[in-house]
Amino acid sequence: MTGLNETHDPARKSWVDGANDPNSDFPIQNLPFGVFSLEGGPVHIGVAIGTRILDLTVLEEEGLIVPADHRVFDQGVLNPFMALPQNVWTRTRRQIADILDEANALSRAELNLVHRALVPMAAARMHLPIFVRSFTDFYASREHATNVGTMFRDPDNALMPNWLHIPIGYNGRATTVVVSDTDIHRPNGQLKGPNDAEPRFGPCQKLDIELELGAIVGTPNPLGQPVTAEEAYASIFGYVLLNDWSARDIQTWEYQPLGPFQSKAFATSISPWVVTREALEPFRKDAPERVKPLLPYLQETSPNNFDIEMVVELVPDGGKSSVISKTNYKYMYYSSALQMVHHASSGCAMETGDLLGSGTISGPTQDSFGSMLELSWNGRDPLKVDGGTRTFLEDGDTININGWCDGDYRIGFGNCAGKVLPAVNFRG
Amino acid sequence: MTGLNETHDPARKSWVDGANDPNSDFPIQNLPFGVFSLEGGPVHIGVAIGTRILDLTVLEEEGLIVPADHRVFDQGVLNPFMALPQNVWTRTRRQIADILDEANALSRAELNLVHRALVPMAAARMHLPIFVRSFTDFYASREHATNVGTMFRDPDNALMPNWLHIPIGYNGRATTVVVSDTDIHRPNGQLKGPNDAEPRFGPCQKLDIELELGAIVGTPNPLGQPVTAEEAYASIFGYVLLNDWSARDIQTWEYQPLGPFQSKAFATSISPWVVTREALEPFRKDAPERVKPLLPYLQETSPNNFDIEMVVELVPDGGKSSVISKTNYKYMYYSSALQMVHHASSGCAMETGDLLGSGTISGPTQDSFGSMLELSWNGRDPLKVDGGTRTFLEDGDTININGWCDGDYRIGFGNCAGKVLPAVNFRG
Repeated sequence: MTGLNETHDPARKSWVDGANDPNSDFPIQNLPFGVFSLEGGPVHIGVAIGTRILDLTVLEEEGLIVPADHRVFDQGVLNPFMALPQNVWTRTRRQIADILDEANALSRAELNLVHRALVPMAAARMHLPIFVRSFTDFYASREHATNVGTMFRDPDNALMPNWLHIPIGYNGRATTVVVSDTDIHRPNGQLKGPNDAEPRFGPCQKLDIELELGAIVGTPNPLGQPVTAEEAYASIFGYVLLNDWSARDIQTWEYQPLGPFQSKAFATSISPWVVTREALEPFRKDAPERVKPLLPYLQETSPNNFDIEMVVELVPDGGKSSVISKTNYKYMYYSSALQMVHHASSGCAMETGDLLGSGTISGPTQDSFGSMLELSWNGRDPLKVDGGTRTFLEDGDTININGWCDGDYRIGFGNCAGKVLPAVNFRG
Repeated sequence: MTGLNETHDPARKSWVDGANDPNSDFPIQNLPFGVFSLEGGPVHIGVAIGTRILDLTVLEEEGLIVPADHRVFDQGVLNPFMALPQNVWTRTRRQIADILDEANALSRAELNLVHRALVPMAAARMHLPIFVRSFTDFYASREHATNVGTMFRDPDNALMPNWLHIPIGYNGRATTVVVSDTDIHRPNGQLKGPNDAEPRFGPCQKLDIELELGAIVGTPNPLGQPVTAEEAYASIFGYVLLNDWSARDIQTWEYQPLGPFQSKAFATSISPWVVTREALEPFRKDAPERVKPLLPYLQETSPNNFDIEMVVELVPDGGKSSVISKTNYKYMYYSSALQMVHHASSGCAMETGDLLGSGTISGPTQDSFGSMLELSWNGRDPLKVDGGTRTFLEDGDTININGWCDGDYRIGFGNCAGKVLPAVNFRG
């Protein structure tokens, strides 16, 4: 396969604790980037390896990893590093792999430094890994769009006429993207049921999740200039798990004619480790067969989907975890690369730190749907969870999303978690 | 009226050239903030006064204007200054007015410095005045929403049921907001006419403008916390003219169900001078009468609209200017303050540098509509312009938007201009 190099060699092993455990999300072939701090300490950039984090801020300061002629790991977000040329991403990844390899060629002094720069992951607090410049959310699962159309419009014409031609998307709210483990207040908003004479203001009663993958743009493109699918694929620095919290009842009342707004604006959670596009390279998949041919500007000449298993668990307050969905990213009709091609096709500039949400990832069966709206079929089929049932989320519920690629080794994303807190008391 | 102080005194005169001209946009009572450079020089922050710009970057460096214990006028955008407490905005405005007043109390050395810091506006190149953190665009003119609903939906039920209850809005694209005088390429996109069997990709054929006012948030509010109308009003640092370029044919095909996306993403122009909320204080107006009572969280206890005259001119390539619309911001049903209240009501954090577009400002008569879609009634009534007619924009056309408040003196916004260039040649 094109794009593979020695960082993908399944025979490579690391000397770091836990890295060779076949169940670890973070073997030497993964090396995802994140932002962390230890108690009372500064915010640093690191790479996950086994049960440890390798502190790149320290290694750059000491001159062992020097990606650029200016410091890029000292600003608490990955954007300065992501803004460097793509071959620097690759070179840095190789250097880090060589350092962490069992067969490393480090001097005693270098090895001492690296040992100093290895911190226990369990002691670290994770931060938002990127400054999110813009957040665009798409709607790229045919199964999800079909389910929503079947429930709310016309089962015989569930897909909108544009859906098979356009990677449909909308602009989300960049400033409310939060890192995993940030608590989420149930949002307030305007609500109006079909039988209510007038709307009222109050806490959302249909709080939902959307299981998504987030693509993070590293390489920008200038205003006015389109990109090809290959350029778009290459310009994506990496991927995170993403939970696009959604207030279905607020959405129903507000969304005509300009689309979702407050129903999505209150919070979007992402996992803390950015799994590089390069680490996912061995797991590329072709897009599903096209129902109708796409226009030439949306042609792909290489596989831009990935085979990523995804699991959603719900944990009631004080209760046990239940799996509520199992699906795979490979089902997506439009890849992140195609979404970016469409996004830039109008001349819209893409920038370093742009986050593209895949849209809800739903598989073909009811247990593989990526939202509670679909899993419970808008409340008709309550889900069994520990100690009861759910149609939508209750206060105190925690949602955990995990995702990984399985092959000769496992490329894991870590956990994307969020707990629902009661609505802020606000007289509206 | 509350909120007025000596900076609003109509008797005040400035010693600066042109400032006392009754036709000047920039008397001593205005003092809008902008970002400029002189040929080959650095990007500085300044205030417009008569035919001159007062260079605040220089005055801060020299210690004459010191808003904070750290430099805020040295970073080429207004955000660091806007992030300071609101009373610092007021104090700084007073200091600047005192310096520029005929009856100033400056020492000879200070006066020398100020003369050095005054540059001719005609020689300056203006830059985007703020780092646009997020751009949210609203839909707050009842006349505009009624016109659009009449044309495209049902004349008898032109307003959506939610419109009289919610300040409808959507997230726009922050990274393609550009400053006045930036050329705009006609966007490419997917197009499908009602009689076309399949969509095609090509240059937009219905390129339009939207005349808007942009509100710029200075004071942020934290994630999860709502704001009152009074808090929202006070947290707005200032206002600019805004042209929300729109590709109507791309919009028609793409907008269901998630709203406008590529049809708006390619460019949004704003005027370079941020007129402060404080300068607009004497021109506050009550909102129009409510057709239906608003929910309590949207109540206003003070007038949050403004009496701002607005004119749109179209200049064909090499031709003469024609006025195509004359309207007034006072017609808007929802003020920027109310829009921000609604925006934050879900718990969505607002940040310094957020830009809130008012939505198209249409008055009650066809010559006061804020888009060519409405002015030409979707092509039925072509507009007369120099040398021909227009339904939508042609390549080479320039749009100029001007706005001002008239009373004892004139508070002008300057010009918001943009010229249409041909589409980028892109085989789609």
